[in-house]
Amino acid sequence: MKTEEKLNMTMLCDFYELTMGNGYFESGYKDRITYFDVFFRRVPDDGGFAIAAGLEQLIDYIENLHFSPEDIAYLRGRNLFSEEFLSYLEDFHFTGDIYAMPEGTPVFPREPMVIVRAKAIEAQLIETFTLLTINHQSLIATKANRIARAARGRTVLEFGSRRAQGADAAIIGARAAYIGGVAGTACTISDQIYGVPAGGTMAHAWVQMFDSEYDAFKTYCQIYPHNATLLVDTYNTLKSGVPNAIRAFNEVLKPMGITKCGIRLDSGDMAYLTRKARKMLDEAGWTECQISVSNSLDEYLIQDLLLQDAKIDLFGVGERMITAKSEPVFGGVYKLAAVEDQQGNITPKIKISENVEKITIPHFKKVYRFYGNDTGKAIADYITVYDETLDDTKDLEIFDPSATWKKKTVYNFTARPLLVPVFLGGKRVYDSPSLPEIQAYCRQQVDTLWDEVKRFDNPHSYYVDLSDRLWNIQQDLLRNRK
Amino acid sequence: MKTEEKLNMTMLCDFYELTMGNGYFESGYKDRITYFDVFFRRVPDDGGFAIAAGLEQLIDYIENLHFSPEDIAYLRGRNLFSEEFLSYLEDFHFTGDIYAMPEGTPVFPREPMVIVRAKAIEAQLIETFTLLTINHQSLIATKANRIARAARGRTVLEFGSRRAQGADAAIIGARAAYIGGVAGTACTISDQIYGVPAGGTMAHAWVQMFDSEYDAFKTYCQIYPHNATLLVDTYNTLKSGVPNAIRAFNEVLKPMGITKCGIRLDSGDMAYLTRKARKMLDEAGWTECQISVSNSLDEYLIQDLLLQDAKIDLFGVGERMITAKSEPVFGGVYKLAAVEDQQGNITPKIKISENVEKITIPHFKKVYRFYGNDTGKAIADYITVYDETLDDTKDLEIFDPSATWKKKTVYNFTARPLLVPVFLGGKRVYDSPSLPEIQAYCRQQVDTLWDEVKRFDNPHSYYVDLSDRLWNIQQDLLRNRK
Repeated sequence: MKTEEKLNMTMLCDFYELTMGNGYFESGYKDRITYFDVFFRRVPDDGGFAIAAGLEQLIDYIENLHFSPEDIAYLRGRNLFSEEFLSYLEDFHFTGDIYAMPEGTPVFPREPMVIVRAKAIEAQLIETFTLLTINHQSLIATKANRIARAARGRTVLEFGSRRAQGADAAIIGARAAYIGGVAGTACTISDQIYGVPAGGTMAHAWVQMFDSEYDAFKTYCQIYPHNATLLVDTYNTLKSGVPNAIRAFNEVLKPMGITKCGIRLDSGDMAYLTRKARKMLDEAGWTECQISVSNSLDEYLIQDLLLQDAKIDLFGVGERMITAKSEPVFGGVYKLAAVEDQQGNITPKIKISENVEKITIPHFKKVYRFYGNDTGKAIADYITVYDETLDDTKDLEIFDPSATWKKKTVYNFTARPLLVPVFLGGKRVYDSPSLPEIQAYCRQQVDTLWDEVKRFDNPHSYYVDLSDRLWNIQQDLLRNRK
Repeated sequence: MKTEEKLNMTMLCDFYELTMGNGYFESGYKDRITYFDVFFRRVPDDGGFAIAAGLEQLIDYIENLHFSPEDIAYLRGRNLFSEEFLSYLEDFHFTGDIYAMPEGTPVFPREPMVIVRAKAIEAQLIETFTLLTINHQSLIATKANRIARAARGRTVLEFGSRRAQGADAAIIGARAAYIGGVAGTACTISDQIYGVPAGGTMAHAWVQMFDSEYDAFKTYCQIYPHNATLLVDTYNTLKSGVPNAIRAFNEVLKPMGITKCGIRLDSGDMAYLTRKARKMLDEAGWTECQISVSNSLDEYLIQDLLLQDAKIDLFGVGERMITAKSEPVFGGVYKLAAVEDQQGNITPKIKISENVEKITIPHFKKVYRFYGNDTGKAIADYITVYDETLDDTKDLEIFDPSATWKKKTVYNFTARPLLVPVFLGGKRVYDSPSLPEIQAYCRQQVDTLWDEVKRFDNPHSYYVDLSDRLWNIQQDLLRNRK
C-alpha cells in the first residue's frame, strides 16, 4: 500500500478561525479550555441514521497540524495579526483531547460525533477541516450504505471518480463508500493508498477502436481470459452486443475451460435487457456469466430493478453515490458546548437561535447506546453530562427532550459508550482499525438497528434522549439567556 | 502566492483505463492516433449555458503525468499487465495535442469543450482525471455564476469549505466559484495558493466565549477596528445583537473616526430582520455599516430576498454553491470521435446508444461562436469538421441538427473559434491568463448572451448547429452502423 503523500492542510481553514485565534490571543483567552461538539441536525435523504466516517483523515490532519514559514509570511502580509500571535503560530500544534465515534458507527441527529477539548485557539482553528472531513465522508458512507442495502446482497461497486467534486472526493470518497458497504471501486489510486479493491475492464472506446465489436471482444478475452467483462451496449445490446460476447466467450474462453466471465450494460432499459441477456447467456451455456449494470443508479433505481426481476449480479454506481446527488450536503456543525476555568470548573454554554432547531445541547457530554439483551437490537441513545454514572443493571426511564411527556422505560439492556478517546493531551491514543474491519463493524452495527429505522422513506425516529440532569442544564440556560 | 504542492495524480484513473491501455499495447493499437471529445448533454439546473473551468488543473496534471516506481510495483502486483507494458509505462508521458475552450467561456450542450488527439493509450489513460477536473470546476463555476447574477451587483462570497466534498472541493471549488463571479472566499488556503481573496471575522463561538455579547463585540472592534463585522444572531438579533453592535461601534469605532463596519446574520427571517436592522443602524448614524447574510442561500433565495426589499450588501453562500447542491453533477463525458492511420487519414467514429441522446457527434471538429456585428451578442455556435473553412463575410444558412427543417440565416456576423491549442506534440503552447483575467473574461462573455438564455428557469435554447458536411458524416455513420 502506497503511503499517501500528505499536504499540510493547516491553512485549509476559514479565515475567521485565524481572526478569532488572534483575537483570543490578544484578549487573554488563548489558554482558556473550550469544548466543541460536532453534530448534525438532519440525516441526508431523510434517512433514519447516518454512518460516521472521516476520523482517519481528521487524525492525519491533527498530527500534521503546523504553520510553515511561508504560511506565517502569508498571514503577516494580511496586516491583521500581531507579531506575538504570528510567533505563537510558529510553534503551534494540537495539545488537546479529541473523543469520537469510531468510523462506521450509525449516528443520529443532535448527538456529538466528535468532541474537541482544547485551548480556544486550537479548538477554533481546527473547526473547518474537522467539519470538512467528517461531513464529506459521513455523507458518502451514509449514501453508500443505503445503496448497498438496496442491492440486497448483490455486489455494488463505486464508479464515480469522473463525476466527483475534485480529486479528494474521488479518492477519499471511494474509501467512505467502502466503509458504507460497497465491495470495491474503479478508482485505482484508492486501492493503492487505502486498499479499496479496484477493478475494471473496458469502456465504449475499446469497442469502437476495433474494426468490429466482435474483434474488440475477442481480443479482450484473449488478453484477459480471467477478467473478461465485455461492454455490450456500444451498438445494439441484444442484436449485436450479447451475441458477439457469447461468440467471443465460446471461441476464446470455452477451449480454455473458463466458465467465469461477465457482460456490462451502460444504457437502455436494464430490467428488460438483463432478463433477455440472461436468457441468451443461459441458453448458450454461460450460466456463470455475471451481468453488471451501470448508468445513473441509486438506491431507488436498484430497488425498482430488483422488484421488476432484473437479472443483475453487480451494480456499478457512479455520480449518484460519489456526490450523494439526491442530497449532497452533510450538515455537521461545530458548536461551543462548554468552557473550563483554570481550576477545572466547566461552565456549559448554549447557542440560542431564531431557528429553534439550531439550539444546541450544552456541556461536556457522553453518549451511550442501549442494546436490548434479548434482541441485541439498539433501543435508544442516551446523552449525559460527562461525569454522570449510568447503571444499566437497573430499569431506566427516558424521555423525548422535545416532548417530555413521551416517556419510556428501558430494562434488560446493555449501555455502550459511543465516543472513544482519540487524542489526549495532544497525543494520539487511538489505533485505527483496518478498512475491512471498519466495513465489517459498520455492517454489524447497522444490523443492530430495527428495520423500521432502516427504511429509506419515513423511517421510524430512533430515540436520542438526554439525561434528567443534562436536560435541566439546557432548560436553565434557555431561561437565563442574556 | 504559495506554490501548490502537487500530488502526482497519474494513478487517479479508472482501472479500466489501464486494462484498456495494456490491451491496446498488446493488440498493436498503442501508437494509433485517437481523437476524444469532452462534452456534456445537459446544463445543470436546466440552465441556458454552463461556464467552462478546470483547464489549469488539467494542464498541471498533463505536465506531471508519469508513473513512479511504486506505481509500477502496484500494477505489477495486480498480475494483469505484461512486463512489456509495465516497462513502457516507466517512460510514459503525454505526447499528444489538446485543444480546449479557455476557462470562463460560456459553453453549451453537445459541443466539445476539450479535444484530445493522442496515441490510444495516452488518450485513454487521461480520461478520468480530465473529466474529473473539467466536470468539477465547470459545475461550481456554472452554479457560482447563477448565484452571482442573482445578487445583481451586490457582493457574493464563497463560505462553503466545511461542507465541501473533500479538501480539493473546498480549495479548488473556491477558485471555480471566483471564475463564475464571486468576489472572494472564506477559505484561507485558496487565497494563498490561487489568490482568491479570503476574508472573515467571527463565528458564534467568539460571542459565546465572552461573558456578554457586548464584551465580545467591543473586544473585536478594539482588535480589528478596520475589519469589524459583528455576528448579531447568537442570542436575539434585534433585541440584543444589533443594539450591542451599535453600542460597540459607538464606543470603539466612532472615537477613531471609523465609519465603515458591518453586521452579519446567520439565521432567522433575513428579509424582515435586515430591514429592521438597516433602520436601527441608519437611525444610529451607521449608514455605511454593511449588512451581510448567510444561511443556506442560493440564486432563488437571493432573488426572493431582493424582491422583498431585504437590505443586504453582501451574501455569504456556503453549501449550496460549493456542492452545487441543487444538481451536484456536471455530466461531462469523454467519447472517441475519430481515429487516424499512419498516413494521417482520419476516420470518424460514432457511439450509438439505446438512449438516443447519448449518440455522439463524430470526427475531429472545430467550434465557432457567431457574434452579431450590430449587437455584439452571441447568435449561435457552429460545429464543423476540422478542415472546413468558414467565411463570415457571407450570409450562412444554419439548421437545428435534431429538427433539420428549422433553418436560420445568419448575416453580418463575426465567427470566433472557441477551441485554442493547449498542448501540441506534448508541449504546452498555452499561457493561462491570471485568475482575475479569467473572471473578467467570463463576465464579458456572459454579457454577450441574450437575457433569454440567461434566465434561471426555462431559458431559451441557444443554437448549437452542425455544418452540412459534419451533419452528413454523422447521418452516414448512423445509417451504416455495424
